[in-house]
Amino acid sequence: MARDINHQIVKALLIQEGWEITHDPYILEDLNPDWEIDLGAEKMIAAEKEREKIAVEIKGFREASFAYEFHGAVGQYINYRIGLETVEPERVLILAVPIEVYETHFLRQGVRLSVEKNQIKLLIYNSSTKKIEKWML
Amino acid sequence: MARDINHQIVKALLIQEGWEITHDPYILEDLNPDWEIDLGAEKMIAAEKEREKIAVEIKGFREASFAYEFHGAVGQYINYRIGLETVEPERVLILAVPIEVYETHFLRQGVRLSVEKNQIKLLIYNSSTKKIEKWML
Repeated sequence: MARDINHQIVKALLIQEGWEITHDPYILEDLNPDWEIDLGAEKMIAAEKEREKIAVEIKGFREASFAYEFHGAVGQYINYRIGLETVEPERVLILAVPIEVYETHFLRQGVRLSVEKNQIKLLIYNSSTKKIEKWML
Repeated sequence: MARDINHQIVKALLIQEGWEITHDPYILEDLNPDWEIDLGAEKMIAAEKEREKIAVEIKGFREASFAYEFHGAVGQYINYRIGLETVEPERVLILAVPIEVYETHFLRQGVRLSVEKNQIKLLIYNSSTKKIEKWML
């Protein structure tokens, strides 16, 4: 349930920032039918006259064990990125993380190292103020 | 519970093959206190007069969703490997997988690609015959 709330929040925030939601979910069906990324979205970049494409995996990190959920999120990110490289390499994969979880856990050494070495792109969202805090691409 | 059974099986198989279990669990404490790899083990390699060191994360993959558990296992593997690179780079990380799970799931395209691109080292064990089937290093 918490997952669905975050899903709706991040989806609304993307639309608010001008993104068109093109997939909900984005299924890597040719590769593995049960690998689903939460959202696919596109936006026109005027300067480049191109459409930027993203896939967003949304995490709430509300479970008892952050470590457990973080390992799962890293695995999803890495597997989905490998999947996208095969089926749609121009689409950028982004992990959406709530600001309070980012501030509590993502500055710790192991997590920082993992995000950096795995080159995980983050979207930090605030579900209280209903804002995207920052994109870390 | 299933996890504990597999833990005991793999531990016994390693001992049977001449490994000394040095850590149970192997804790990446300087990095992240709640990152624990299931086992640490060492073995004398006569030819090289050196001790080979491994860390083994043991998976049973008995949950309803293989995809979910696989993502989690990949995340653990990658995070623990990053951790080991920092604290003990000569220790080799290995993911232990039951033979029936390997045969059912690990030959599928997405899983194969992930194991290959992430350079995941596997130990395939057989809990019925109580044997290590193969090391894929």
